[in-house]
Amino acid sequence: MGHIRTVRKFKKIGFLDITDGSSYKNLSVVCKDVNLLNDFKVGQSVYLEGTVVESKGTQDYELSFDVNKHKIKIVGDIEDSYPIQKKETSFQFLRTIPEFRHRTSTLASILRLRSDIEFSLLNFFKKQDFVKVTPPMVTSADTEGAGEQFALEPINPRSNIVNGKEEIDHFFGKPAYLTVSTQLHLEILAASLNRVWTLTPCFRAEYSNTNRHLSEFWMLEAEISFVEEISQLTDFCEDMIKSVILDIKANSEDVLGSRFNDAERQIMQERWDITDKKWPSITYTEAITILKNHDSSVQWGDSISTEHEKWLAGEHFQSPVFITDYPKSQKPFYMPLSKNNDTSQPTVACFDLIFPTIGELIGGSLREHNYDKLVEELQSRGMKRDMNWYLAIRKNGSVPHGGFGMGFERLLLYLTSIENIRDVVTFPRSPQSCDC
Amino acid sequence: MGHIRTVRKFKKIGFLDITDGSSYKNLSVVCKDVNLLNDFKVGQSVYLEGTVVESKGTQDYELSFDVNKHKIKIVGDIEDSYPIQKKETSFQFLRTIPEFRHRTSTLASILRLRSDIEFSLLNFFKKQDFVKVTPPMVTSADTEGAGEQFALEPINPRSNIVNGKEEIDHFFGKPAYLTVSTQLHLEILAASLNRVWTLTPCFRAEYSNTNRHLSEFWMLEAEISFVEEISQLTDFCEDMIKSVILDIKANSEDVLGSRFNDAERQIMQERWDITDKKWPSITYTEAITILKNHDSSVQWGDSISTEHEKWLAGEHFQSPVFITDYPKSQKPFYMPLSKNNDTSQPTVACFDLIFPTIGELIGGSLREHNYDKLVEELQSRGMKRDMNWYLAIRKNGSVPHGGFGMGFERLLLYLTSIENIRDVVTFPRSPQSCDC
Repeated sequence: MGHIRTVRKFKKIGFLDITDGSSYKNLSVVCKDVNLLNDFKVGQSVYLEGTVVESKGTQDYELSFDVNKHKIKIVGDIEDSYPIQKKETSFQFLRTIPEFRHRTSTLASILRLRSDIEFSLLNFFKKQDFVKVTPPMVTSADTEGAGEQFALEPINPRSNIVNGKEEIDHFFGKPAYLTVSTQLHLEILAASLNRVWTLTPCFRAEYSNTNRHLSEFWMLEAEISFVEEISQLTDFCEDMIKSVILDIKANSEDVLGSRFNDAERQIMQERWDITDKKWPSITYTEAITILKNHDSSVQWGDSISTEHEKWLAGEHFQSPVFITDYPKSQKPFYMPLSKNNDTSQPTVACFDLIFPTIGELIGGSLREHNYDKLVEELQSRGMKRDMNWYLAIRKNGSVPHGGFGMGFERLLLYLTSIENIRDVVTFPRSPQSCDC
Repeated sequence: MGHIRTVRKFKKIGFLDITDGSSYKNLSVVCKDVNLLNDFKVGQSVYLEGTVVESKGTQDYELSFDVNKHKIKIVGDIEDSYPIQKKETSFQFLRTIPEFRHRTSTLASILRLRSDIEFSLLNFFKKQDFVKVTPPMVTSADTEGAGEQFALEPINPRSNIVNGKEEIDHFFGKPAYLTVSTQLHLEILAASLNRVWTLTPCFRAEYSNTNRHLSEFWMLEAEISFVEEISQLTDFCEDMIKSVILDIKANSEDVLGSRFNDAERQIMQERWDITDKKWPSITYTEAITILKNHDSSVQWGDSISTEHEKWLAGEHFQSPVFITDYPKSQKPFYMPLSKNNDTSQPTVACFDLIFPTIGELIGGSLREHNYDKLVEELQSRGMKRDMNWYLAIRKNGSVPHGGFGMGFERLLLYLTSIENIRDVVTFPRSPQSCDC
């Protein structure tokens, strides 16, 4: 049982290549009665019988079909307009047919690889004694203080008359939002369970359409108790990604063996070749010094642009690189000052992991675990939502801790050499785009 | 490094029981200088040194602390009001302190078990050649036709003036909702990848507060291509749950060995004792016949109440039981008619898996794969949202397929014998409740 990928007819022999979607490999069905194949088209689903025989072609086995012995039946026909054909189709065009696009071998391979990577990560965290947790997607808090959240209410919300005016009766008793990061909740869970991680959807209501951003994406986040040095976090992240790459190299022939063409496979193999050497780690201040030689307009205090990130990792270091200790003004409220802080140019104990061709893949930091310092920072930034639940753990058995977040799709972009983030998810969501 | 769970002082010896949260087991620190322990309180986080020695107590090892050789330091103190103490605290009270409640040994054990079960499921589906996929949480579709969805827009949505009136400029270009089930998207992916599953948050905007419902919960869903019989799905579900139970029996001593009391452990062991026998499967019509003998008011066509479900599984069969082929009028649009359908009392090819004490754990069905029948059903139910994307796969290589959904928290309720669903999630969300 499967779908027809190709129909190949020659004078005395014909082939149907069948896939059920579970592997990049097709099953070739060999048929001596060529005329029989006239009824078959790419995309149809079929039931067929045959005899498994050793293949004369490149595969180990094929199915020999004899019309006098075996049955074949079209289960699901196609329309004349069926858009998936053997010939190459652009990713851009495929995005217009979300219901069919994963029937192409490349996009199907990406989803299988994504599944394999998740499996590899689960095993990695399991070995490291983490508990996988499920923090809430709905929250009344504002993790990043950035305000680019979605608000949610029932389709037909209830309302009350308050002072003669109709006011919405919030479903959750107060305004509620979709999370932009589960970090704050993970910190609470790490204070109970020591080491926690999660892989969940995250949502950002940003009006920007780029090939690196989605309104709904998946984020891997981890929080680790009793961590006092940034290097503990960067070492962990390096181990994690190297472990994934070694795992898929060993177990996932799907992608490197698949219909990606030779040039694409070559690029991918080079990208995966980052597991042997230790990745460099530099401070933001050192990064600025390096960048000044490359672009004299750069100054201490600037954000490092994505272009500059790509140059640092792709050209200068030719390696993933950690950049630590960014200026305090560029980072969220929960990051403590760096250990060797320069009071005239205050920096915080954080890091970004920068990848060639991708830019930022991971962002992480130590978390301020001193109650008074954290309250002061919240107040100075004018953050108003109730944070007492988050602050309370700093007054009761507080421990030094840290964590990080990784955009899961960004990792997939790097590993697959796919350029548009919409092509590594199932049904991409972005401004003006929610087809189904 | 850890948190103090208990402080025990005797005349000539004292003990600190320390946990870091990664296990239900504590580390006992033995201290001959009893007065030293006066400064220590339950809930504080500490750094300490000691010598690992064989234990004279019930554990294998303990830590011997000698004030002349070793260091001990309070890292995070507690407030006088710190609510988690050694003495038993009700789950109800704990729900009022979401920031601390998982520091109790029972709730921490539940989260560790939850993590172990997810790991077990991932291995099960991997062995069965499934691809784990990530369908979207944001959708413009309405899976169940029930309308109890959350709508979402940015906190500060943009608007347009249309015919002199201000109208919201939908972020996604049209109204968008949080998914109540990922099934429709999974069906599309199964048509590409053969067998797919997912474990994701789901959202229901129901104004009901029960101990079995949440506004945000996690759902396991799977879709399987080339399935033509309900029994293929019920066999699969039975294998899946039995596999989880055998796995956690073998690997997760955490819960059965933990601070659950003896009576609780006894109940749990009985509940887990469902792996040896084949579970019965009856049709809805057979279930009604059985129920009539129990409650003469029951009639064919009635919904089977949760109470009746619990009686069937808990009392009558004393086993999980599948109920198949419910009346068509009780079920969603996408279910095909049963094979041996009685036209005067039409039923559909579906099943619910009913568990003792829980009621419905899994619901599944074959999916109508005939285009014309599906369109007719959609129209007769007056469903208006654009479903062409979903219908299109029925006209292009359609295959018989089926799937199911399982409320992940319901499984946890059964396996832990916890009564309120709020206690098996990290931060429960329900009407009027979104603390943080």
